[in-house]
Amino acid sequence: MGAVKSKRMPRAVREQQMLDAAVRTFGQRGYMAASMDEIAELAGVSKPLVYLYLNSKEDLFLACIRREAKALVEAVRAGARPALPADRQLWAGLTAFFAHTARHPDGWAVLHLQARTHGEVFAAEVTAMRADIVTFVTELILAAAREAHRDPHLPGREVAGLAEALVGAAEALAAWANSTPGVTARQASATLMNFAWAGLGDLMAGRPWSPPEGEAPDTGAGSGADVHTGRTSPVR
Amino acid sequence: MGAVKSKRMPRAVREQQMLDAAVRTFGQRGYMAASMDEIAELAGVSKPLVYLYLNSKEDLFLACIRREAKALVEAVRAGARPALPADRQLWAGLTAFFAHTARHPDGWAVLHLQARTHGEVFAAEVTAMRADIVTFVTELILAAAREAHRDPHLPGREVAGLAEALVGAAEALAAWANSTPGVTARQASATLMNFAWAGLGDLMAGRPWSPPEGEAPDTGAGSGADVHTGRTSPVR
Repeated sequence: MGAVKSKRMPRAVREQQMLDAAVRTFGQRGYMAASMDEIAELAGVSKPLVYLYLNSKEDLFLACIRREAKALVEAVRAGARPALPADRQLWAGLTAFFAHTARHPDGWAVLHLQARTHGEVFAAEVTAMRADIVTFVTELILAAAREAHRDPHLPGREVAGLAEALVGAAEALAAWANSTPGVTARQASATLMNFAWAGLGDLMAGRPWSPPEGEAPDTGAGSGADVHTGRTSPVR
Repeated sequence: MGAVKSKRMPRAVREQQMLDAAVRTFGQRGYMAASMDEIAELAGVSKPLVYLYLNSKEDLFLACIRREAKALVEAVRAGARPALPADRQLWAGLTAFFAHTARHPDGWAVLHLQARTHGEVFAAEVTAMRADIVTFVTELILAAAREAHRDPHLPGREVAGLAEALVGAAEALAAWANSTPGVTARQASATLMNFAWAGLGDLMAGRPWSPPEGEAPDTGAGSGADVHTGRTSPVR
């Protein structure tokens, strides 16, 4: 894996540096205002080299979208822990999602705002990523239904609708969290988990879902129906 | 109000016809592919008249976005009935939203897809509309909290997050409902109401929220904490 072994490594490394610079510039300035000069300078390379490697501003933007989408989907999938009870799995997945979008605000701005605002080719990439995440969430909800020993043949349409609702809520909340000073990834996940798992009805009745106090596997969390009143609860 | 009274009426009427044709064309073909020739033909007017009245394709698109955004916000506000208990109010608002997006699929495509995909000027209009709806939903959630005799001083940040989540879920679900054959506005509202009010935890435990059997005010719905098992429930 040394630099001697493959002549491609330096190019791959430099390409990643260019993409890092581009994601930052597109995310902070917006696609239209971002200049190739600025991206090249931030990456510490010449502008012709950026064009040689990435071809055009459009192709560079597309490469950014694909890299950020892949990283986000991988982070969410890696976050879920199938051995946990359903509510803890969902909590783990949501926390992974909000932690990733909080740690990569420029990447999230590229995916959620820029890619959807500047043409159908770019928007289609985000639509594909979204479909991946909806599929994953659908599996989580089906697993939760199986765990609850309910009819595993939940109406497919109902589960698909719930997954769409959950993903739409997560997207909106990530954008809000990143643009609202002081909202942490953990708070955003807790708000969504309360909404998604306990529902407004339970929240209003003073029965919020509470996140586990620690992330250690020996927290001894019971079923999702248990009512916790831990101090980490975001409501009250 | 007769045609004689004001010379502006014919222009206003013709403008609405142009906007009707434009919303349909932008919604179905997309902003880029839509041609001014097609819009003029569909409106039954000459292309120069469209330019005379609406100035340019960009201005015509902007006028469409503004008209559709205003109509959607008005429909949602008109749908909520402040005299009802909180869960019924939310149900009424959601039903009004999904009924409107189902009845005006081209208008919704213009707002949710086209306006956000073709530049920042258009996207900003949708962002403003969204802020209106988030404000409205925030009021609904605060009213629900007051009704539940809970601390009316719910953390503002928590309520704002819940409103963002609910609006994001509604947007995603409306897009899904309109692109999924056979999903009615009522089913979409019921799915979201279940998600938003009962939460996945209650759904999995077999405690869905059930929509009222009829929309008559004498349905006698109790508090949101009541468990109904009406046959209109979308789960089971």
